[in-house]
Amino acid sequence: MTKSKQVFRSGPYSDLIAQGVKIGSTVYLSGQVGMDSAGNIPVSMAEQTALAYSSIRILLAEFGATMDNIVDETFLVTNMEETHANLEAIFGARAEAYGRIPEVTQTLFGVAGLLFPELKIEIKCIAHL
Amino acid sequence: MTKSKQVFRSGPYSDLIAQGVKIGSTVYLSGQVGMDSAGNIPVSMAEQTALAYSSIRILLAEFGATMDNIVDETFLVTNMEETHANLEAIFGARAEAYGRIPEVTQTLFGVAGLLFPELKIEIKCIAHL
Amino acid sequence: MTKSKQVFRSGPYSDLIAQGVKIGSTVYLSGQVGMDSAGNIPVSMAEQTALAYSSIRILLAEFGATMDNIVDETFLVTNMEETHANLEAIFGARAEAYGRIPEVTQTLFGVAGLLFPELKIEIKCIAHL
Repeated sequence: MTKSKQVFRSGPYSDLIAQGVKIGSTVYLSGQVGMDSAGNIPVSMAEQTALAYSSIRILLAEFGATMDNIVDETFLVTNMEETHANLEAIFGARAEAYGRIPEVTQTLFGVAGLLFPELKIEIKCIAHL
Repeated sequence: MTKSKQVFRSGPYSDLIAQGVKIGSTVYLSGQVGMDSAGNIPVSMAEQTALAYSSIRILLAEFGATMDNIVDETFLVTNMEETHANLEAIFGARAEAYGRIPEVTQTLFGVAGLLFPELKIEIKCIAHL
Repeated sequence: MTKSKQVFRSGPYSDLIAQGVKIGSTVYLSGQVGMDSAGNIPVSMAEQTALAYSSIRILLAEFGATMDNIVDETFLVTNMEETHANLEAIFGARAEAYGRIPEVTQTLFGVAGLLFPELKIEIKCIAHL
């Protein structure tokens, strides 16, 4: 029996990758970054975090899901020192995005680079309905 | 139909992230590191590996799971040279934690940093019951 | 009720890790790299990408799956500049491997190192049947 599959595409790479795929009751999202719809990337990690979650929320809605459906997060950061210095603001933006204490596992680590040099954080989520 | 969800929190970040989330028959764990309950971080990668698996085993037990339920691992290491030089000891500690040849996929790569500078390895697991 | 589990091992690390694990309808693959069966690693990222997908296709077949069953990819690259300079060739090799526009989410980031210094890309996939 093949599981039902739903695919959502958007943005400049929509012919290469999907931004979200739902298979059975699992939703995989592509890593989301802190860029607004006009392509602007704010300097602050907290603002980038807020923008990434804004994209995540919009993508989840395409699958009938909300932030409450997220079960696992991977936080990719380009600078651990800057991350530590802004930890409260970053997790404040995250708390605001969730609107409650998230029931979510998280793995956070430093990467050698993200797709654009201005990006400081990328968030990859798995959700379950 | 919403799947049953179980959440386990512990440690200093328990108001921010869960250490484990079970949704349906899948258990996601946050990445575990080589720190003991007193916050001590041993210098050796093998000892850090043993401690990380010790945490993983304790977390899995909260969900009625054991090491045998792990299906996928991500090994994040901060130094590839040190990893190669200690490969036998690291995988020896892992073999001891599993107690048999693990039926587990693995992806290992070098990261630019983990949460604390003394950390040399972080292990993220997915388990299925 | 325990889910059915299928494990596939091959290669030099077969006593340490599985190259693929199927649990229920989910298939986890270990990260695959651009090395041929003789251990040769081509210099070009596009050729490494083609070889990695060749391994992925072979592994999926062990589980009765094809490239169409892949739902999520993680692209680990060692050099973001080289990745940008070869983006078209890399994604060309990927398009050829899929044979159509992939219905797959992707997260791409720079790592500090892969298992061997000659490796420039590693691809980790999750598939669902």
